Amino acid sequence: MQSPSELRRDIVSGDWVVIATGRAKRPDDFLKIKNTKLKQPKTGCPFEAPDSEALATYPLCATGDNPDKNAENWRVKVVPNKYPAFSRGICPVFHKNGPYDWTEGVGIHEIVITRDHDKDMSFLDKTEIELTLQAFLDRYNVMKEDPCVEYVSIFQNHGSAAGASIAHPHSQIIGIPVIPPDVGRSLKGSENYFHEHKSCVHCLIVGHELKAEERIIYENKHFAVIAPFASKTSFESRIFPKKHNPYFETLDGEERSSLSDALKTILSALRSGLDDPDYNFFIHTSPVKRNQEYEHYHWHLEIIPKLAVWAGFEIGTGIEISTIAPETAAKFLREVKI
Amino acid sequence: MQSPSELRRDIVSGDWVVIATGRAKRPDDFLKIKNTKLKQPKTGCPFEAPDSEALATYPLCATGDNPDKNAENWRVKVVPNKYPAFSRGICPVFHKNGPYDWTEGVGIHEIVITRDHDKDMSFLDKTEIELTLQAFLDRYNVMKEDPCVEYVSIFQNHGSAAGASIAHPHSQIIGIPVIPPDVGRSLKGSENYFHEHKSCVHCLIVGHELKAEERIIYENKHFAVIAPFASKTSFESRIFPKKHNPYFETLDGEERSSLSDALKTILSALRSGLDDPDYNFFIHTSPVKRNQEYEHYHWHLEIIPKLAVWAGFEIGTGIEISTIAPETAAKFLREVKI
Repeated sequence: MQSPSELRRDIVSGDWVVIATGRAKRPDDFLKIKNTKLKQPKTGCPFEAPDSEALATYPLCATGDNPDKNAENWRVKVVPNKYPAFSRGICPVFHKNGPYDWTEGVGIHEIVITRDHDKDMSFLDKTEIELTLQAFLDRYNVMKEDPCVEYVSIFQNHGSAAGASIAHPHSQIIGIPVIPPDVGRSLKGSENYFHEHKSCVHCLIVGHELKAEERIIYENKHFAVIAPFASKTSFESRIFPKKHNPYFETLDGEERSSLSDALKTILSALRSGLDDPDYNFFIHTSPVKRNQEYEHYHWHLEIIPKLAVWAGFEIGTGIEISTIAPETAAKFLREVKI
Repeated sequence: MQSPSELRRDIVSGDWVVIATGRAKRPDDFLKIKNTKLKQPKTGCPFEAPDSEALATYPLCATGDNPDKNAENWRVKVVPNKYPAFSRGICPVFHKNGPYDWTEGVGIHEIVITRDHDKDMSFLDKTEIELTLQAFLDRYNVMKEDPCVEYVSIFQNHGSAAGASIAHPHSQIIGIPVIPPDVGRSLKGSENYFHEHKSCVHCLIVGHELKAEERIIYENKHFAVIAPFASKTSFESRIFPKKHNPYFETLDGEERSSLSDALKTILSALRSGLDDPDYNFFIHTSPVKRNQEYEHYHWHLEIIPKLAVWAGFEIGTGIEISTIAPETAAKFLREVKI
């Protein structure tokens, strides 16, 4: 008897996911899912220069043809988040509240803004994406030196279903005083594998996928875009550096250009193939404090389209039910005309 | 300097959450969040008796005044899910696909339907909720004996933002062949605490909260409804049996009545206070196979309203940013007129 679904175990986290091929959808079916577009006019947009208080007053860095932070011809700008989830202060200490632990939400929360109100990242040219990556690196390296910061999370929310509240394209960088649980689990899985096999589990994945080909969406000189074997969501993809590297911040100029190309390709494939779905992307990299070694880790960027809703089963078990096989999703995204 | 947010650690999972009081909202503000109601007419509803093929042909059990499964006067019925995520078969074995593990999605997937198309659980009388709980127990005890089943997940999706695709109120019961990752983490956290302190961490929580009072939403003879100290979402609540008990399926008649009362109270408070938000609830209990002991565990029911969207930070880190303090949420839900 053929089961209509299969359980796949994530080789890093050990988590299970369900690929419910018995409930299979064709890629076209995902187009029918309601996509509430985040439409906001350019007028009144808080990120629109030159009126914007945030942009005019507080640029932390800016890129473009002129290195002056307040230059007219900026392309990418970084500003503090006006409503930070974490803000600068005295480094937190751990407190007790009855039997519970808590600590102050001290950290750094910044916004990376690209200039054009109407161009999401897939519409930017490769140079503009490179400038955005450069801004990520610049601010990462500043936050890394902050004594309160243990981890720097870089992410983007595209569309309201992905949690974006401002339509103007932007990414976020948050330096936080703890190692986040999901990152901790990813690190732990890599470490366990390394101890047992004396090699990097992510290198194993990249090597296997490049040979097997069926889950490769795109590759260029330095990066491979892969639909994970145990994808947690439909059309999930990850961009891995081909060369082993635990630390995002070591990205050099040539790699930055290669990553920009890979990111533009996968975001364009999602937009063209799935009618501009909402999505989140984020980077998983090593914690910034090097009192522990993270040589076993391998930084990467994950892109999670919001094509389905997490229901009680997913929330209660941590097992996600994905309705398209990653192999099918990879083939679709590989072949879509962008 | 007072930080605008705090990080709280979940005492069981070890996960961190952020209570961003600096971005604080009053309970009223949550009413403004768009709630896309799932409205479907009674005509054509797949769960409407007597036309429904599923209800007429396959009732696995039914409750009401007449124990006959096909009686006219049923109140709660259990049927197989027509589109199961897991279905019966030969017990799965573990396979390799290159470096990855996978196994067949063998299991049992059933739907628990209450009779009235328009009455969600908060509108049912306590007897009807008791009958629903009885149906959960009856099917739990059947699934528990299945040799392929390792864990039984019981949950309800209310509203489209919570993943419900059929408006007619129903719950789901899924027997699966692995211990789910989130349950595994909750079990592991309890076990670690037990090893260190020789006592149940959940009993500690319940005892502390009943004394501290600030996060208690409701209590009756056998159950306490608590806003967790490290709530992962705004207005999250958990119903704990006051007496230590690892196993949901041992619920007796008096406890069932007490749980029915607690569940009706919290669901009514959410509906009245927050304009009928979409929500998920699910039960966390011990795995069904007792080759390992789970005496350290303490079953409970979690209710997660869908009042915000998970964005890139939450998805990338596993740290959720909740914008209302659990103490404020508890006070609001405790005092709302239902």
